[in-house]
Amino acid sequence: MDLGTVRTVNDGPIRVAVDAMGGDHAPLEIVSGTLSWARSHPAERVLLVGAPERIAEVAVGQIPPNVEIVPASQVVEMDESPAQALKSKKDSSIMVAMDLVKQGRADVLVTAGHSGAGMAAAVLKLGRLPGVDRPALAVQMVTETGPFVLLDIGANMDSTGNNLYQFAHMGSLYAERVLGVVNPRVGLLSIGEERGKGDQAVQQATETLDAEGTLNFIGNVEGRDLVKHMADVAVCDAMVGNVTMKFFEGLATFIFGLWEKEFRGSIRGKLAYLLMRPSIGRIRTLFDYEKMGASPLLGVKGMVLITHGSAKRRMIEFALDAGVTAGRARIPDLIADAFRGKPRHG
Amino acid sequence: MDLGTVRTVNDGPIRVAVDAMGGDHAPLEIVSGTLSWARSHPAERVLLVGAPERIAEVAVGQIPPNVEIVPASQVVEMDESPAQALKSKKDSSIMVAMDLVKQGRADVLVTAGHSGAGMAAAVLKLGRLPGVDRPALAVQMVTETGPFVLLDIGANMDSTGNNLYQFAHMGSLYAERVLGVVNPRVGLLSIGEERGKGDQAVQQATETLDAEGTLNFIGNVEGRDLVKHMADVAVCDAMVGNVTMKFFEGLATFIFGLWEKEFRGSIRGKLAYLLMRPSIGRIRTLFDYEKMGASPLLGVKGMVLITHGSAKRRMIEFALDAGVTAGRARIPDLIADAFRGKPRHG
Repeated sequence: MDLGTVRTVNDGPIRVAVDAMGGDHAPLEIVSGTLSWARSHPAERVLLVGAPERIAEVAVGQIPPNVEIVPASQVVEMDESPAQALKSKKDSSIMVAMDLVKQGRADVLVTAGHSGAGMAAAVLKLGRLPGVDRPALAVQMVTETGPFVLLDIGANMDSTGNNLYQFAHMGSLYAERVLGVVNPRVGLLSIGEERGKGDQAVQQATETLDAEGTLNFIGNVEGRDLVKHMADVAVCDAMVGNVTMKFFEGLATFIFGLWEKEFRGSIRGKLAYLLMRPSIGRIRTLFDYEKMGASPLLGVKGMVLITHGSAKRRMIEFALDAGVTAGRARIPDLIADAFRGKPRHG
Repeated sequence: MDLGTVRTVNDGPIRVAVDAMGGDHAPLEIVSGTLSWARSHPAERVLLVGAPERIAEVAVGQIPPNVEIVPASQVVEMDESPAQALKSKKDSSIMVAMDLVKQGRADVLVTAGHSGAGMAAAVLKLGRLPGVDRPALAVQMVTETGPFVLLDIGANMDSTGNNLYQFAHMGSLYAERVLGVVNPRVGLLSIGEERGKGDQAVQQATETLDAEGTLNFIGNVEGRDLVKHMADVAVCDAMVGNVTMKFFEGLATFIFGLWEKEFRGSIRGKLAYLLMRPSIGRIRTLFDYEKMGASPLLGVKGMVLITHGSAKRRMIEFALDAGVTAGRARIPDLIADAFRGKPRHG
């Protein structure tokens, strides 16, 4: 069967290209997670991209039949300049994996490598979808009542109102089709709750979204609204999104660290810990960032998911789950449909 | 003694103008907090600005001798447009209080009223310090090893690189003179750790700060660095600062809520709570946002502190403490000195 001709990705096996060489713990953790995932998902297919001998070195057990190794001789390192690396390393794992998506041999790509290089490679190789001015990197964030989508967290600098408007559409589609939210509430993450309050970009996006009236646009959401799940999609400039996401990571780790110290620091604490073990488990589960899996890059001609540079095998497995869901939902096609004939604003 | 002529505020009593009518719980909580604080700080002076009959209604016990009531017949409500309210309400408590600062009758102003109105009134009445293009609102945020200053959290939209550069200087002075940090580490809150990575404003501010070389400029800090106390001053555009500050509030409340539910939800939890009581107290103390007191508006010709709209008496007392420290430090004079003869960038 020539997988390159399969068009209805909704029903068939999803073919995931995995960048085996990208990430702080590559290739060991990437390969381990991927092989384990492939074994438990025999209906899907994996194209594991990297140096075959290095993959063989770290692979434990047989390579399962649904995994194909696709050779790539180079690696973009975490500390390289993306632009230079992509120019000089045409046979890097990220570029070869991106080619698989471009050629239609893979439905989705997962990488834990340099996120800047991943995004640059996607724009370079796949290109933007027609009508999309700039792609956006999105992330799922946790609340007690379910996840919400935050974007952009790092694909662009100095986003305009029109960019935010487009992010709103892409985020809404993603929340609907991947998270399964009916009629997602889309908010602009800004400085006050009054509709339109914020910088020029927020004001302009508000006008456009209000005038268009197609999304379930709820106006502004504030920083404190996010954890209350007051929006299913929070749209913002990458500076705001990236700082928010990383602050979440930092603050959650900090608070858990404080509790841990108190639990360990005394006999009373140790006793309390024993009593609270199920509770601690529940809270830890809620804040389990590895479950976020991976961040979709929305707006390019192909489904690209970028996971944490520090991802280990367990997070890679969640990233592959996210990849299959995103691949099955045909998000790039949906975005292309949504943007067909849409006027540009600004 | 004509207090208007006292110039060396460092040594004398600090004269704090308090907006008695601004805030969600005004005048009751503002007046209660102020009177209680004045009683325990007999060496300082308070000018309590508002409707005398309403202040008298809520005042418990004698008005202490170091409190003078300054009449103001109008109030800017929390849901009013600042620009309109300030135009039509010349005798509002915030405008009258600001006048006291302008006339040199007060060294510092504390308000829990509409923060937009407070900032607008400050710019309108006091004006910006020479050399300062835009004022910045700063806030103290908590870490395990001490507070850091985050600014701007809401005075401006669409800050330029030159604005960020000026915020860096004002924040550094505040951290040094009010928080007592020696040679404060100043960072630009941005999207990556590489120096200069970020939007145009961050890139430009980086260049200027590097070229100037007078501050202890450490380059970028990321969202996850904040709680690790990697900077004493984190400088950013108001969208980033405001979302970060409010997200902190929301997330901390959310996480504490989760623990509380677990402690209350079972016999085991209740028992653990009893054991953990001292620990919970320690953690609560660390996250006690009322202790932040108030946010200084830096860059205007007078010391103005804006506290939380929901502030109750305890937070008002902390705000007055902050007011005295800030007033004694003569921050506006220091900023004026620092900006004298400074070239503008951009």
